[in-house]
Order: sequence, then structure tokens, then C-alpha cells
Amino acid sequence: MKPKVAIIGASGYVGGELLRLLLSHGQVSVTKVTSSSNCAKKVSDVHRNLHNLTDLQFSDEPVEQVAKEVDLMFFALPHCTSMDLVPKVIGKTMIVDLSADFRLEDPGVFEKFYGRHSSKGLLDKFVCGLPELNRAAIKKARNVSVPGCFPTGAILALLPLAKSGLLASNVIIDSKTGSSGSGKTPSESTHHPERAQDFKAYNVFSHRHQPEIEQGLKSQGNGAFDITFVAHSAPMARGIFTTAYAFLQRPITKPELKEIYGKCYGKEFFIRLVDQARSNVVKGTNFCDIGLDCSGRKVVITSAIDNLVRGAAGTAVQDMNIMLGINERTGLEFPGFLP
Amino acid sequence: MKPKVAIIGASGYVGGELLRLLLSHGQVSVTKVTSSSNCAKKVSDVHRNLHNLTDLQFSDEPVEQVAKEVDLMFFALPHCTSMDLVPKVIGKTMIVDLSADFRLEDPGVFEKFYGRHSSKGLLDKFVCGLPELNRAAIKKARNVSVPGCFPTGAILALLPLAKSGLLASNVIIDSKTGSSGSGKTPSESTHHPERAQDFKAYNVFSHRHQPEIEQGLKSQGNGAFDITFVAHSAPMARGIFTTAYAFLQRPITKPELKEIYGKCYGKEFFIRLVDQARSNVVKGTNFCDIGLDCSGRKVVITSAIDNLVRGAAGTAVQDMNIMLGINERTGLEFPGFLP
Amino acid sequence: MKPKVAIIGASGYVGGELLRLLLSHGQVSVTKVTSSSNCAKKVSDVHRNLHNLTDLQFSDEPVEQVAKEVDLMFFALPHCTSMDLVPKVIGKTMIVDLSADFRLEDPGVFEKFYGRHSSKGLLDKFVCGLPELNRAAIKKARNVSVPGCFPTGAILALLPLAKSGLLASNVIIDSKTGSSGSGKTPSESTHHPERAQDFKAYNVFSHRHQPEIEQGLKSQGNGAFDITFVAHSAPMARGIFTTAYAFLQRPITKPELKEIYGKCYGKEFFIRLVDQARSNVVKGTNFCDIGLDCSGRKVVITSAIDNLVRGAAGTAVQDMNIMLGINERTGLEFPGFLP
Amino acid sequence: MKPKVAIIGASGYVGGELLRLLLSHGQVSVTKVTSSSNCAKKVSDVHRNLHNLTDLQFSDEPVEQVAKEVDLMFFALPHCTSMDLVPKVIGKTMIVDLSADFRLEDPGVFEKFYGRHSSKGLLDKFVCGLPELNRAAIKKARNVSVPGCFPTGAILALLPLAKSGLLASNVIIDSKTGSSGSGKTPSESTHHPERAQDFKAYNVFSHRHQPEIEQGLKSQGNGAFDITFVAHSAPMARGIFTTAYAFLQRPITKPELKEIYGKCYGKEFFIRLVDQARSNVVKGTNFCDIGLDCSGRKVVITSAIDNLVRGAAGTAVQDMNIMLGINERTGLEFPGFLP
Repeated sequence: MKPKVAIIGASGYVGGELLRLLLSHGQVSVTKVTSSSNCAKKVSDVHRNLHNLTDLQFSDEPVEQVAKEVDLMFFALPHCTSMDLVPKVIGKTMIVDLSADFRLEDPGVFEKFYGRHSSKGLLDKFVCGLPELNRAAIKKARNVSVPGCFPTGAILALLPLAKSGLLASNVIIDSKTGSSGSGKTPSESTHHPERAQDFKAYNVFSHRHQPEIEQGLKSQGNGAFDITFVAHSAPMARGIFTTAYAFLQRPITKPELKEIYGKCYGKEFFIRLVDQARSNVVKGTNFCDIGLDCSGRKVVITSAIDNLVRGAAGTAVQDMNIMLGINERTGLEFPGFLP
Repeated sequence: MKPKVAIIGASGYVGGELLRLLLSHGQVSVTKVTSSSNCAKKVSDVHRNLHNLTDLQFSDEPVEQVAKEVDLMFFALPHCTSMDLVPKVIGKTMIVDLSADFRLEDPGVFEKFYGRHSSKGLLDKFVCGLPELNRAAIKKARNVSVPGCFPTGAILALLPLAKSGLLASNVIIDSKTGSSGSGKTPSESTHHPERAQDFKAYNVFSHRHQPEIEQGLKSQGNGAFDITFVAHSAPMARGIFTTAYAFLQRPITKPELKEIYGKCYGKEFFIRLVDQARSNVVKGTNFCDIGLDCSGRKVVITSAIDNLVRGAAGTAVQDMNIMLGINERTGLEFPGFLP
Repeated sequence: MKPKVAIIGASGYVGGELLRLLLSHGQVSVTKVTSSSNCAKKVSDVHRNLHNLTDLQFSDEPVEQVAKEVDLMFFALPHCTSMDLVPKVIGKTMIVDLSADFRLEDPGVFEKFYGRHSSKGLLDKFVCGLPELNRAAIKKARNVSVPGCFPTGAILALLPLAKSGLLASNVIIDSKTGSSGSGKTPSESTHHPERAQDFKAYNVFSHRHQPEIEQGLKSQGNGAFDITFVAHSAPMARGIFTTAYAFLQRPITKPELKEIYGKCYGKEFFIRLVDQARSNVVKGTNFCDIGLDCSGRKVVITSAIDNLVRGAAGTAVQDMNIMLGINERTGLEFPGFLP
Repeated sequence: MKPKVAIIGASGYVGGELLRLLLSHGQVSVTKVTSSSNCAKKVSDVHRNLHNLTDLQFSDEPVEQVAKEVDLMFFALPHCTSMDLVPKVIGKTMIVDLSADFRLEDPGVFEKFYGRHSSKGLLDKFVCGLPELNRAAIKKARNVSVPGCFPTGAILALLPLAKSGLLASNVIIDSKTGSSGSGKTPSESTHHPERAQDFKAYNVFSHRHQPEIEQGLKSQGNGAFDITFVAHSAPMARGIFTTAYAFLQRPITKPELKEIYGKCYGKEFFIRLVDQARSNVVKGTNFCDIGLDCSGRKVVITSAIDNLVRGAAGTAVQDMNIMLGINERTGLEFPGFLP
């Protein structure tokens, strides 16, 4: 019998993408989807793309109850919500959490950016769910925390260099995101008349994804990195494009750079080394396309991901596959489409 | 001394466009702008495009007080709001109302679409502020009601045919609007991730601009027209593009059709007969570009306007110019820009 | 062994979509792809979304040669190109042609809109490849002509009414298309600075899809229809949204209308009757979403399709499935994604 | 009598913007516009936004002839074209060149990026036309070279810091441009289906605007800067958004940073220090909006300009005003519009 999975908080964009991926997955069954605000509604009345494709309905069953009926629970809730629910189910089911609640190892850092953490004691029960960084640990884990969308694009861009020991401390990361990263709730910054044709930076020097990027890279290198991260709002619905600027300990040639990335990512199906990374090419997919450029000691690494798939639901499904011992690519192999 | 004008409800998109136009107008002074929700804020902190260009601040002064200080008041308030304020100032100052409150002659029709009208008795104190339709009356009027954005595009497209007596009763109007027509308050239908790249129809057979179009055309023809009007949301921020399908009493040739329009609109600076109407070409301007096609008894008339300018603030300023005896084009003659 | 298929002219947008669909299809093998301009290039260097996902290369092998090696050939060539190649292979392999060359039954109509037809004698060897209209014939056919993108959206919107005998002669069809419908070759009308935020009508009273719509509907009804069709360029990359205005022989209620459509389309997996059709919801998919509205004798039917999938490559794959006796939905069942 | 001006090469986007600005300018007359490819066409048939607003026609009169009839000539030609024409008219009329031909002081650098320069001997006859950098020289100049669009955004962002002596050598400039920067000729990278919703970097480490930025900043500081400049294509039609990352010689506070910029730009009407720079806010205008952020020794400076106005035609008109002794703001004071 197929493993059963549930999605807690399935009415948002990430929940919708989890459903899209899991309903076509073939090796798991989605048996429960909850949403406090859409209880008893048909899933396809909220996620219109699923019209006629599922009979699922949203429930508001307590998580303790859900945990008894499934093998794995996805939490796709707003930040600072999972932390109150996870204690009720941890140990009873596998957990893949897509919020920020269990991403940061240091509760002090978490509280600086997000406010009080109600389950600090559980932080070390979660492992970072970036397969390219942490596959072995995910395999053994019962609880996985999916990295944020910006950190995914940034860490995947820089991981091979961090591992190589060549990376100097100062790294500048300029990221551009589509509007779906802001979620489903309308706001001024995602109001179409304002956002269409607009470009701007936001939360300069105070974006909460910065410590997560630092933590991810530090774990691989031989020391801490000084990350300057600036997020930008781009006039597109999907995608994160990241331009990372770094200096190396010594000059490098393009073939050397390619070799470093090839060695690190050669077996990674979802990482593609390309001539020119483009957000449109990976739209809707789990791929991370990476472009490599260098000049002397300077390198410019670009990466393109779909923020809702590779930056959330896709990585979460990949984690699930690894945790359940299913072929890691299952349900995620489809290409994107252009235009 | 220049005439003084006030804008009541100046923090929305229409208020912002009124300010843009009036601050560069040259022959009037904006001396008061009110906004209940932004009281005491600098105008340029709300309308960022005006940064450094005005020292005006929003006040919440009662309209009775404002009326004593100015020659003309623009009301740029949500529907069903002007109706409560206008009675306090009517007769004391000139009024240009941009809401729907005083557009429909028949209070029954108004109440069917908008709810209770609190000032029915004042409906006949307002004249329709479409200069191409009603210039003589606007000249003598103290109170003008600016037509809705869809009706402006539709009536300007069909006016010459309605006047010609050639138009058969059944007319189909398919209009496509940019997202700014929904105003400044974010909502699901103007949420960027949803709206970008999306096209849909809405309020089919129940859009409240339909009776206004019927009223406008009836006033010119020799009988009522049966209008089928469908509004669509297009994935652009500005503009209304209207495609009107009509049957004539007899076959017509393109030169004849051009002659009818040329005769009617020859002296109208803000109407341009073009080979192909395009919303992008009139963006930011008071122009209405009109394209003409026919085949036998069938005609297809297309019009392109900027919904916030020609469909609201621009026409309002044109009305003000006429009412104050200023050259009608003042402050509105600038071209748009492409791309 | 799986049936083998070839794509003749596989470097355009439709060719790219055929590849995307067929590489994930599972029950056929794509063994040849040709492109005169990209000969010897890797397919994934032209269709970047397929990077790492296929080793196919473009060849310029003559079609006679290709026909010997495959069971079915897709022709995804510009109009007036297939007509010169099809005579060389017809009868030797199954053919699915995606151009206009074999869509129109009457060669006189074809030549009026497209120029000289070099293979008039073969017109009656092809059947119309719209499964909802013509499934039985497709099942027995060796040669199928996939309908145009606008006709697909328009015919699917009106088919049940045409069949019902209720439809009066005059039908108005207002269609809005994304820019990918213009193909891969850059032009002024698809130049991003011009197209972004622009809306316009084109080829009014002279669009070459009009006779195809008339032919499709006539085949179902009990007489010819007088179609007024206007195509519009919308500022989006994908999708066709169609608004069809018709008058019925008698007044109808919404439940009746729904029943007519439900009866006709109840078993059609790729037709979905929805509250509100939206182009964004069907993006990338083979679905046609249809919205129904009526008032007295008037009906407004809206349909949303992806122009490159349901309007070309998706229907072509559906045709192939039917012709090869494979489950019709194979390779096409995936949902779209929102946002 | 008003000074007469001509535009050589007036059919492109920059030529169109020059016309839009100069036709409303009031203190100069545009008496000649040339275009080799549009000779004898009406200007308004090429620039549709000017329909009914000008009777000008394109001529192909030789520049020598034009020079006799006007006081100032704008050259809005493709790169490497002005260089062949300027020698024929220099000294006979004032020149404002908008190409790259006379921007770089060092012919070696020019030839590395653009190819052979046919008029090297004239390079020192031109002064850099960035008023905020070079007003005094422009005032006395007969020949002005308008800076490139990216350099304008980048230099204006960094000028006060370069002047302050606080800027460390290494500066990273991440710029994002709208598609109109690629000009009017359609190409793959500006093909709407490809560009809509797409984000990518291009010409990393080889963009020809890099040496121009270095030259501009060096002229102000006390030494050369090491600039890393990466240009990106954003899915918008207009605007350049620049994010500049720099390190200072010592930590700085936000008030100090504001003071440095305020002191440098306090009297500059077209520079606005804002809380958050946004490309949409300056669309269509000559303003450069600048946002300031710092943390310790790190600064992040953002700037937003309209690439065709502030990045080309607007600055050119500002230069013309200065050269002709007209009030510098004339014809450029209008605000942008939002949304």
C-alpha cells in the first residue's frame, strides 16, 4: 500500500503546489488536507487548476488526529504557526515543515528576525532539507525543515565554491523574486497596478533570509562567510534569479570553475549547469539552473529557480522521496515550458 | 488670480492623477486635498511620483468648510460616498463628481446596481460630463458627473453611429480593462501573481456600467439600444480597449464610415481616428484613439483610452476647463509615450 | 515495442511543446526530429527547458526517409510548407499536420486566405483533428489536420449550442491571444517594449481563422452560421481567451444551458465547465475551461485554452493517442499551475 | 526667435522620446528630423503617440545641409554611425550625441568594446553630458556626449561617495534593465514570449558600459575604482534599477550617509533622495530616485531611472538647455505617473 501523506495548511500557494505535485506523484496518496479558513470547501474550488482532478476537501481536523492516519505530514503554514503544532505530532509521524520555524539552529537568531519561538527545544530535531547539501542526514531524518526560497537559490549557487575552500569571506548576493513569493494574501507590494513594470529593493540589511544563507554556507566551508544579501521585487509572478558576487583566494579560469561545479553537482539531476540561467526556463519545475563566470579572482555565479517549486514544494517532495526511500526524482522529473 | 480647486478624496489612483494633471495645469491652484485615511500626511508620501513636486498635505477638513475656500471641488470618492457630502456644498461651489453617484438619471436603475441613493433629489442637478456628447450643457453647468471608464470608451466608440441614425438596436460591447481600474485597494483579482498573464471575463450580464452606456447612447439616437456589455480583466496596469460590434440599417463602405466619424469628431482634439487603436499609445493621456472597420452591414469599432485619465481624471479636468471658461485643452495636450 | 514518431519542423514553439509532451509520454518514442535551420544542433540547445533531458539532435533528413523509420509523423511547419512534403509520405505513415494546409475543405477558401495550394487533391484525405467534434473519424484516420488555435477555442465554446439547433445564425466571437501564437520569429508586434501592457485588435474582417470556425460549426448544426470573428493581441505570452456572443431561437435559463453543455461534454476529460474561465488556469495544459452565461435569448460563452497546447501540440498528441489506440489522455493529464 | 534644433536618426525609441520632449518644450523649435529608413514618412506614422500632434516628416537630408539650418543637432544614431557624420558638421553647429561614439576618452578602450573608431581625433572635442557631474563644462561646450543608460544610473548612485573620498576601491554594480534599452529592432532577447516573466544576466564581465562607469567615477575620486558590473534583462519595458554595493574606508551611519548625498545633490532638481527607489515611479521622467542604506562599513545604494529619458533623451534635453542658456528644467519638470 502507498504511504499516506497529509498537508497541513493546504490552501496557500505552497499548499497548491504540493497538491499539484503529489496528485501526479504516483507512489504516495494524499489523504488529508487541512485549512482553517477553507474547512469543508472542495480543494478544487480554491486551487482552480485542479478542477475535476481531485475530490479532496479541506478539513480542520486537529493535527494530532491527522498524525494517526498518515505516514508523513507536510506543514505549509505561515511562519510562527508550525512551532505550536509540531510538538503535538513530533515522533508520531514524519514531518516536512516548509515554514521558517525550524530552519535556524540558533534560537537567538530566529527570535531576532521572527519573534518568540515557542518550541526552541525542538530545533535540533530537524535537519536542513536541501538534498544537495544534506542528503545523508535527510535519509535518516524523521523531521525535515525545507530551506527558504532565497537561501535555496543562493546556497545552491555558492555551495561548490564554499566546499572548495577557495571562497573569500565577503560574498554579495543580489536576488530578484517574483510576486508569488509574497503568498496568496493581497498587499500593496503585490497589487498588480503597482507591481507590473516595477522593480525595487526591499528590507536592505534586514532581510530574514540572510542568517539562513550564512548558516547554510558556513556548514560547508571552513569558516564563516560575511554575506551581504539584498532582495528585490521583480515584475514577474514566478521565479527567483540570484546573482552572487564573490572573490576567490586566487585567480581561476572558467574550465577550473566548471570543474569545481561539475564535480560537486555532476550527479545532481535537479542542478543544471547552463550557459545562461533564465528564470523562465525553470518555471514550474524543480530544476536549479546555474551560470558560471569569472575574471581573475572575481566570480559571478547566477542561479534561477522557481520559488514555489524548487524554493518550497518541489524540494519538500524531494525530501519526502528521500525520507520514504522512494526514487528521489519521482514526481519531479517533468521539464518546464518556454515560452 | 487663478481659480482655486479642491480634491475631496485625493489619496486614490484617480485623486493621484487629478493631482498630476492639476499641479502642471498652470491656470488653476490646488489649494485643498482631503483624505480621511491619510490626514496630515504629505501628499508626496502617498503619491510617490510627486516627491519633491508639491508641499500639499492631506487634510480632513469638512466639505462645507472646503467649499468656502475654493471655486470648484472634485469628488474622487468611492461610490455611494459623494451622495452624502454633495448636499452640504451644492450651490456653494462648482462640483465635478467622479463617482457613479450622479451618473444615472433614473434612481431606480441606480439602486438596482449600487444600493440605496441618499440624494435622489439632486440627480437632475448634474449633467453628464462627456464633452464630446454634452459640451454645451457642461459650459452652463455648476455640477458635472464624469462618466465611468467603460462607458467613456464605449460611448466614444459608438456616438457618431448613434447620432447617424444608422445603428440597429443590438450592439455588443466587449471591453478589456487594466488592473488600475479596480482602484488602490488590493484584492484577489488584482493580486499580481493571479493577474499577471491572466485573462478573464467578469460580471457577465450584471456589470453596472451597462445601464450607463445605454443611457449615453439613447440620448443621441432616435430610440433605445439593446446593449450587451461584457467587461474583461486584462493583464496590464492601465488602459481600456473596447471592441464594439454593431449592425447598421444598410451596408456601408469604409470611406462612408470614416466620413461619419470625421464629421462628428473632426474638431475634437482628444479623439483621434487611427488605423489601429492601441491601449499602449494613449497610456497616461486624455486621448481616445478610434479604429473603424466594416463589412456590409456589419461594423467593428475599436477604441483605446487610459482608464484613469480619459476614463476619469482627464475628462474631469477637461470638464473643469469648460466650466471655468479656460481653453479646454489646457493641461491635457501632452502626448503619451511608447514603448 | 513502442510506436515511433517523428517531428518535422521541431525547432519552433509548437515543435518544442510536442517534444515536452512526447518525451514524458511513456508510450511512444520520439526517434527523429528535423529542422532545416538547426541541423546537427542538440535539441536542448534550442529548447532550453529540455536541457539534460534529451540527447536528440536535429537532422535534415528528407521526409521520405523519415517516413520509413516511424509510425507517425507530426508536421509542425509554417503554413504552405507541409503541402509540398505531405505528398511524398502520405500513405506510408500516419500524419498529424499542425499547419493550416489541410484544415479547409474548400480549396477556393484556402487560396483566398493563404495563397496557392500545391496539393488540393489531398485535402479530402485529412480529417479534422478536434476530438470533441470528430473522434470517430480520427480513430479511423491515417491523416489528421489539427485545427487552428482560435478555431479550437471558438468551436469548443459553441459546439454544444450548434448541435442543439438553438443557435441563431449571427454569432460574434471576440478572441484574445498571447504573443506565443505569433511563433518564434521576432517581429514588431511581438517586440516586448511594444507588446508589454498593450492591447489591440488586428486583421478585423480578414483573419484567416474565420472560415475555419464557420466550417467547424456548420458541420454540427443544421445550416451555416454567420460568424463575425475579431482577433486581439493581449499582453501575455500564453493563452487564448474567447468570448462568444450568440442569440438563441428562444429564451434559455442557466440550468438549461448547463444541461446542454453537460450532455455534450460530460465525458470529455479535457473540457471543464467552470464558474469563470481564466487563461492562467489552463496555462501549459490541454484543458479547455468554459464559462456559461445567459439572459433571455442572449448567451455569452467564454473559453480559455493554452494556445500552444490545447491550440496545437496537446490536441495533436491527443489525436495521436486516438489514432494509435492508446488511452486518449496519456501524457496530457497533468494540471496547470497557479499562479 | 527660438533656437532651431534637428534630430539625426529620429525614428528609434530615443528619437521618439526626443520628439515627445522637444515638441512640448516651448523654447526651441524642432525643424528637421532625419531617418534614412523612413524618409518622406510622417513622423506620426512612425511614432504613433504623436498622431495629430506634429506635421513633421522624416527627411534624408545630408547632415552638412541640416547643420546650416539649425543651432543644435541631436545625433540619435546606432553606435559607430555618428563618428562618420560628426566630422562633417563639428564646429558649424552645437552637437549633442547620444551614441557611445564620443563617450570614452581612451580610444583604445573604445576599440576594444565597439570596434574601429573613425574619428579618434575628435574624442577630446566632446565633454561628458551628465549635468550632475559636469555642469560647468557643459555650459561652455559646443559638443556634448550623453552618457549611456547604465552608466547614468550607476554614476548617479555613487557620485557623492566617490567625491567624498570614503569609497574603497571595490564596487559591485548589479543593474536591471527594461527591454526598451535594446532599441526598436526586434530580436530573440526582446521577443515578448521569451521576455515576459523572464529574468537573466547577460554579457557578464564583458559589458561595454563597464569602462564608462569606471571613467565617470574615476574623474571624481582620488584614484581608480575596480568596478564589477553585471547587466540583467528584467521583464519590463522601461526603466533601469541599479543596486550598488560598496565598502567604505570607515563605518558610517545613515544620517551621515544622507548628509553626504544631501550636500552633493541638494540643489539637483532631477535627483530625489527617497526611502525606496522604484523604477515605476520615475517611468517617463527625467528623475533619478536614489535610496540609501548602510551597515557598518558596507553601503547599498539603489537608483531608479527611466532608461530612455534620464538614460538618454531627457539628459540630452537637459544638456541642450544648459548649452543654450535656457533654464535647465525646461520641458522636463513633469512628474511620472503611478500606477
